[in-house]
Amino acid sequence: MRLAAQAVNDHLDSLMAETGDPEDRVIQAMRYASLDGGKRLRPFLVMQSASLFTVANSCALNVAAALEMIHCYSLVHDDLPAMDNDDLRRGRPTVHRKWDEATAILAGDGLLTKAFEVLALTGTHSDPSVRCELVTELALASGARGMIGGQMIDLMAERGLLDQNQDMAAITRMHAMKTGRLIGFGCVSGAILGKAARPLRQALGNFSRDLGLAFQIADDILDVEGSTEELGKTAGKDQAAGKVTFVSLLGLERAREQARMLADQAVRHLEVFDEKADLLRAVARFVVERQN
Amino acid sequence: MRLAAQAVNDHLDSLMAETGDPEDRVIQAMRYASLDGGKRLRPFLVMQSASLFTVANSCALNVAAALEMIHCYSLVHDDLPAMDNDDLRRGRPTVHRKWDEATAILAGDGLLTKAFEVLALTGTHSDPSVRCELVTELALASGARGMIGGQMIDLMAERGLLDQNQDMAAITRMHAMKTGRLIGFGCVSGAILGKAARPLRQALGNFSRDLGLAFQIADDILDVEGSTEELGKTAGKDQAAGKVTFVSLLGLERAREQARMLADQAVRHLEVFDEKADLLRAVARFVVERQN
Repeated sequence: MRLAAQAVNDHLDSLMAETGDPEDRVIQAMRYASLDGGKRLRPFLVMQSASLFTVANSCALNVAAALEMIHCYSLVHDDLPAMDNDDLRRGRPTVHRKWDEATAILAGDGLLTKAFEVLALTGTHSDPSVRCELVTELALASGARGMIGGQMIDLMAERGLLDQNQDMAAITRMHAMKTGRLIGFGCVSGAILGKAARPLRQALGNFSRDLGLAFQIADDILDVEGSTEELGKTAGKDQAAGKVTFVSLLGLERAREQARMLADQAVRHLEVFDEKADLLRAVARFVVERQN
Repeated sequence: MRLAAQAVNDHLDSLMAETGDPEDRVIQAMRYASLDGGKRLRPFLVMQSASLFTVANSCALNVAAALEMIHCYSLVHDDLPAMDNDDLRRGRPTVHRKWDEATAILAGDGLLTKAFEVLALTGTHSDPSVRCELVTELALASGARGMIGGQMIDLMAERGLLDQNQDMAAITRMHAMKTGRLIGFGCVSGAILGKAARPLRQALGNFSRDLGLAFQIADDILDVEGSTEELGKTAGKDQAAGKVTFVSLLGLERAREQARMLADQAVRHLEVFDEKADLLRAVARFVVERQN
């Protein structure tokens, strides 16, 4: 995972170079928000998914960088005072703390826009219909019926604006949108780049659904069990906010069991692939065992 | 201009339908921010630019809707308390006033993302390489070296964070980025859709540069001369904020002259086109004569 993280980091670095122009301030904030941080889970999924098919490394790197830009922009906006109001991210001050709110809003917008620019680059794939498909899929995964929609529901729940009960079905749907769809894009992107047959693409889609849910349950567990230092972000926030989580619905023990069961199920979807998928199998384990 | 505005409005309406799901809240805010409002100058430019070439109306409408989504998202984020802190837009409460800041941030992100989804739709052009080119051009025009970069510089100037002098060259560059690039995309998009020869595309690019600057000078004049009621947004803001504008640099009379001269110059770039470009010629006049 570290090798992929380094490669993606270098690539992000080269895609967002400073030029000495006055608008560099927003570029600096975009770089701060996306370089040198995080587990790089989503880029890793792209690189591993691509490795199952015949895909040039440089193409996969563009997709990995675009996906990470989307993930990072969502964190920058999510950390804003009007949203989660967080001072700490990856153990460092959040963008609006380091600069100011306006710069953070613009930096998020800049990363979001840049992601689509990168996907449309000739270097992402020689076939423009593949590039268009990537744009479509990433827009759907991160848009108002995907990640943004999930964030909206999450906020409404927090503020008591939701009509419906926050039961397992509702929480699962919200997380499938909020974090699952981007993880799904990462897992499937290699199949798009490699123009893989439908069943293989579907297997990766199914893998990602179980993986995404396992990831979220593990996140809820970590929020309860982890320390702020370990997480690099404020711990215990869900509980403090009285949020309905998988842990509050299932209890710690059953939540842990459920996460492990989902990880097993995720791995079974990879049976169509040979040992080339071993690192994806390992990721399913990592996601439920991780400490941050 | 009204016919195009109505067609684009209907199209935006159909692209962002409510479904009854809980995340509809962000869709409602996206609709509020983009339907039934504004001059629709940018969509008009797309439709007129497309009319110069052989382009299906439905294709041009997709591009017009995408461009308007970008324009509207930028207004939603620009109106936020951390940015311009505006309560009024197009004579109605701004999105964060009607809903809340978090919803406004997400609605802006949603419009931005949706714009690229729409450009990548098969219906935008049968040739995927044309769709990719539109994605690239819109991302560049609206990104950190385009519109977002211009907004960043504008904010820095307002807050005294700029090293360099705010002279004519700096102000012109800032506006060319902040508003000029999107207007430029609108003017050139028809040539992209119609796979026009380079010189024709360049003529439209040159037209848009003069048009964009004329538009901005007229905007600065309106801020001084218009009433809040006429404008549908707070008047006299630039002066109150002590901003350097074309009016503060040139004075009202010379600014007015300059705008007219640029409009004339813009029209001359259209000499290669026949009477099909007459409405674009009229737009150059409208932009400097308008009252809001």
